[in-house]
Amino acid sequence: MSKYAVGVDFGTESGRAILVDVADGRQLATAVYSYRNGVIDERLPVDGAPVLLPLEWALQDPDDYLDVFRTTVPEVLSAAAVDPRDVVGIGVDFTACTMLPVTADGTPLSSLPDLRREPHAWVKLWKHHAAQPHADRINAVARERGEDWLDRYGGRISSEWFFAKSLQILEEAPEVYARADRLLEAADWVVWRLTGEETRNLCTAGYKAMWSRRDGFPSREYLAALHPDFADVVDTKMLHEVAELGDRAGGLSAEAAAWTGLLPGTAVAVANVDAHVAVPAATVTEPGRMVMIMGTSTCHMVMSRDEREVPGMCGYVQDGILPGLFGYEAGQSAVGDHFGWFVENAVPVAYHDEARERGIDIHALLQEKAARLAVGESGLLALDWWNGNRSVLVDAGVSGLLIGATLATAPEEIYRALVEATAFGTRIIIETFEAHGIPVEDIVACGGLAEKSPLIMQIYADVTGRPFRISGSDQTPALGSAMHAAVAAGLDAGGYGSIVDASRAMARLRDGAYEPIPANQAAYEVLYREYVRLHDYFGRGENDVMRVLKGLRAQARTGAEA
Amino acid sequence: MSKYAVGVDFGTESGRAILVDVADGRQLATAVYSYRNGVIDERLPVDGAPVLLPLEWALQDPDDYLDVFRTTVPEVLSAAAVDPRDVVGIGVDFTACTMLPVTADGTPLSSLPDLRREPHAWVKLWKHHAAQPHADRINAVARERGEDWLDRYGGRISSEWFFAKSLQILEEAPEVYARADRLLEAADWVVWRLTGEETRNLCTAGYKAMWSRRDGFPSREYLAALHPDFADVVDTKMLHEVAELGDRAGGLSAEAAAWTGLLPGTAVAVANVDAHVAVPAATVTEPGRMVMIMGTSTCHMVMSRDEREVPGMCGYVQDGILPGLFGYEAGQSAVGDHFGWFVENAVPVAYHDEARERGIDIHALLQEKAARLAVGESGLLALDWWNGNRSVLVDAGVSGLLIGATLATAPEEIYRALVEATAFGTRIIIETFEAHGIPVEDIVACGGLAEKSPLIMQIYADVTGRPFRISGSDQTPALGSAMHAAVAAGLDAGGYGSIVDASRAMARLRDGAYEPIPANQAAYEVLYREYVRLHDYFGRGENDVMRVLKGLRAQARTGAEA
Repeated sequence: MSKYAVGVDFGTESGRAILVDVADGRQLATAVYSYRNGVIDERLPVDGAPVLLPLEWALQDPDDYLDVFRTTVPEVLSAAAVDPRDVVGIGVDFTACTMLPVTADGTPLSSLPDLRREPHAWVKLWKHHAAQPHADRINAVARERGEDWLDRYGGRISSEWFFAKSLQILEEAPEVYARADRLLEAADWVVWRLTGEETRNLCTAGYKAMWSRRDGFPSREYLAALHPDFADVVDTKMLHEVAELGDRAGGLSAEAAAWTGLLPGTAVAVANVDAHVAVPAATVTEPGRMVMIMGTSTCHMVMSRDEREVPGMCGYVQDGILPGLFGYEAGQSAVGDHFGWFVENAVPVAYHDEARERGIDIHALLQEKAARLAVGESGLLALDWWNGNRSVLVDAGVSGLLIGATLATAPEEIYRALVEATAFGTRIIIETFEAHGIPVEDIVACGGLAEKSPLIMQIYADVTGRPFRISGSDQTPALGSAMHAAVAAGLDAGGYGSIVDASRAMARLRDGAYEPIPANQAAYEVLYREYVRLHDYFGRGENDVMRVLKGLRAQARTGAEA
Repeated sequence: MSKYAVGVDFGTESGRAILVDVADGRQLATAVYSYRNGVIDERLPVDGAPVLLPLEWALQDPDDYLDVFRTTVPEVLSAAAVDPRDVVGIGVDFTACTMLPVTADGTPLSSLPDLRREPHAWVKLWKHHAAQPHADRINAVARERGEDWLDRYGGRISSEWFFAKSLQILEEAPEVYARADRLLEAADWVVWRLTGEETRNLCTAGYKAMWSRRDGFPSREYLAALHPDFADVVDTKMLHEVAELGDRAGGLSAEAAAWTGLLPGTAVAVANVDAHVAVPAATVTEPGRMVMIMGTSTCHMVMSRDEREVPGMCGYVQDGILPGLFGYEAGQSAVGDHFGWFVENAVPVAYHDEARERGIDIHALLQEKAARLAVGESGLLALDWWNGNRSVLVDAGVSGLLIGATLATAPEEIYRALVEATAFGTRIIIETFEAHGIPVEDIVACGGLAEKSPLIMQIYADVTGRPFRISGSDQTPALGSAMHAAVAAGLDAGGYGSIVDASRAMARLRDGAYEPIPANQAAYEVLYREYVRLHDYFGRGENDVMRVLKGLRAQARTGAEA
């Protein structure tokens, strides 16, 4: 009798469920639900007078997450015609740090009528960048006090992370902060909604909230130094116990069973992060192989038996990806978003017409034209910082640069330069890892860009000088969640005893690999040296024009509103 | 009895004739002819196997110039219903340095059947940039030998100029060079076609061929140091006498009278350059007032009683604009071309749709949206080097840069940044002039951009801190040519005794001026400082990435062709 597991992957714009066979990971059905309110970055979706959001804000509506369960899980069960009794478990993964304030019973503050028009009551999406001043202070105070944990995170905490976002709530909306009984990851919140029991997953606790197995969360003294009222944030607003990945968070509640069509009591796995859960689903359970999850942004995951401090990376967490290994994370804040911005804002009519006439996607057309260019032929070089820099510099204040444009520059040349820039960004991350004792020998990529774009993958292989393999699943994070669900269910229920066992049975790679082409590698050496020089010049303080421009922009906006 | 003059302005894509009243400059008729072969930059317009052109080439077909006379002059005569007997003269102005090789009787080598497929036999348009290596050698050898004239041209000769283009012919196509009895400006060639008599105008001789009233052309010894066979280029392939601006080159030949419908013997003025001839036509006959001719590129003209060496400017020529004054020229190689590139290559469908629905031009739409932005609000800064840098740096090897892009960057923000970049480029030119003793107190602008774009003019006024006035004519260079025709005809024939008199009678300004707005000026100070820093960093050798990229591009192209 076959057994099945459900994985639900919460992305930036939508949530997706898959139903897989526990024996071999075969995907039987998939369903997507696009969040009704999507990314909220201009105004709150409320009635009455508009509530406009400042620049750099990015919120979400927690109700959209529950709608994902309500729509996609019944859909995959029905599409695969699977008996809910044969589903051993359900697991979820989420963007992170995506966090929200809730009441003691888990009600989001944004659901409370009197707080609905208060932006700080809503979910702060991972790409909410308005807590930069708070992150700056978190870093400055940590450096000043010599906090040990700072070096685990490359010497710099991102504005995207948990305490930066929490501190922003406290300082900008103390009344919302006061009303919050819990501040927690959306990942843990949806598991709470499924099980009726609150858990705090090790992955986000470690990567986004500076928790470690050795030292726990940052100290009261440190938090008090940030703001007196922040001293007890861990004690009063956060669950203390941290749950291991692959553990059972609880059984499905009757209410959630009704939403999903699964049986009450079905094993629900401890929540995980989309990038991290993808690693074993991409067959990687050992050191030396990097997994890149390439979507709107890219996450780079690599493991090591050794604990190493790598400056400018997002951080490392013991057991943070797989038990028994230190899991290292890096990231690039705009990759697919980069190309999407370009297509939305900078591709002329004639190209869209050609794509339509030929019945192909505009990205496919641009990639086809870009593929005809030799390395260096565009004459362009870009810095891939349209959404700041998440790793190596860890600086949301930097911005995009394009250099080398002439009157003969064609759209596909700019497109290719943007692709190459993101590949250079990956290479500088890999080199930084290796320089600090974390080898990266080859790479497994997953996500839409990896699956659909041979040009992009070949450029990445040529730029990094490393073979790129592609995950066999087109829903690698969701598969990873389903694998964790099978582990949470356990051997006796038809699942697995460990994630490594689950990975061996359920994960696979596509045939073939993108191998570096030596002539291209050599040509990219020259461009990469120039990239690094611009990266350091604009990124390491010698010329702070990017920050000046962002400052002027904010000032002009404020002036325009006043 | 009214008297009339005809001015013919030869531009990059077309030629235009106007017919004006000599008494007050009133324009009675205008006619345009678009060159059939336009700018030839991909393949020669010849039958048989295609003759492809390398990068940076830009040629024209001399037959197109004669077609301008054949079509536009009869058209203005007919439209204005003017008796040819009342037309006192015809004058021409041309882009420069636009030059060609011809036989002793003035036949272009590109008309000879056996040379028609030879690119070097054709007209080299001003924006032909393939003679950069030759310009580099011209500069190096001049510096080495301590040639006096080098400092008159800001210390650097452009690849666009006469000897660079001539040397390129000699070295790349010695057989074409050998067949040329004359190498000359297209400006002088069309006057030769009109009169049957060869002249060499002072303006192009001075600005483009390093001639001066004091020293004549560069010496045999210098030319021999460039290439032994180049020693006698002046002696054997160039007319020695230089004709003063406003002089009569000759009378219209019977053949040219038949083309144009004018009477044989009608006064034909010595040829002139489009930018220079525009100065008196924009009412400027004194020092301290700059005239900017703003089209695809911009020329900046200012006069002084004093001789001053200004580094990085295009050059100065005694009597080169108006008799009795030193005429100084600077330039920006892409201005309208910049915005045109953007509209062609980087504006999304939705904007074109909106423009079409509202029945407005896409530039008008972008300017309307850009006008809603406060100074600094785009968060962008650009270096206006999409077509290299013609003044201050005098370097065709630099290229365009855009910095500050984010995922929220909108097309109108980039458009505005490009406009601002060209305004910063103008300011750095003005400041360089002033730092070397050539005051620039206010500015008269002419050309399509100046007439049609209040946003652009206001940005220029705000960035430069100087009032901008607009020429009263929408065909300022052609009016200038007609004024010179009236001077060539002379007082007795109903013309004028001097160009100053002609300017007082025939030239006027539009009412009103664009005055700098103090708040914008202050905001632009900050951006301008950043512009100068980037300008110097990328333009003065500290970071030569732009040259590296151009080198890689050329190499990749060559590789791709091989």
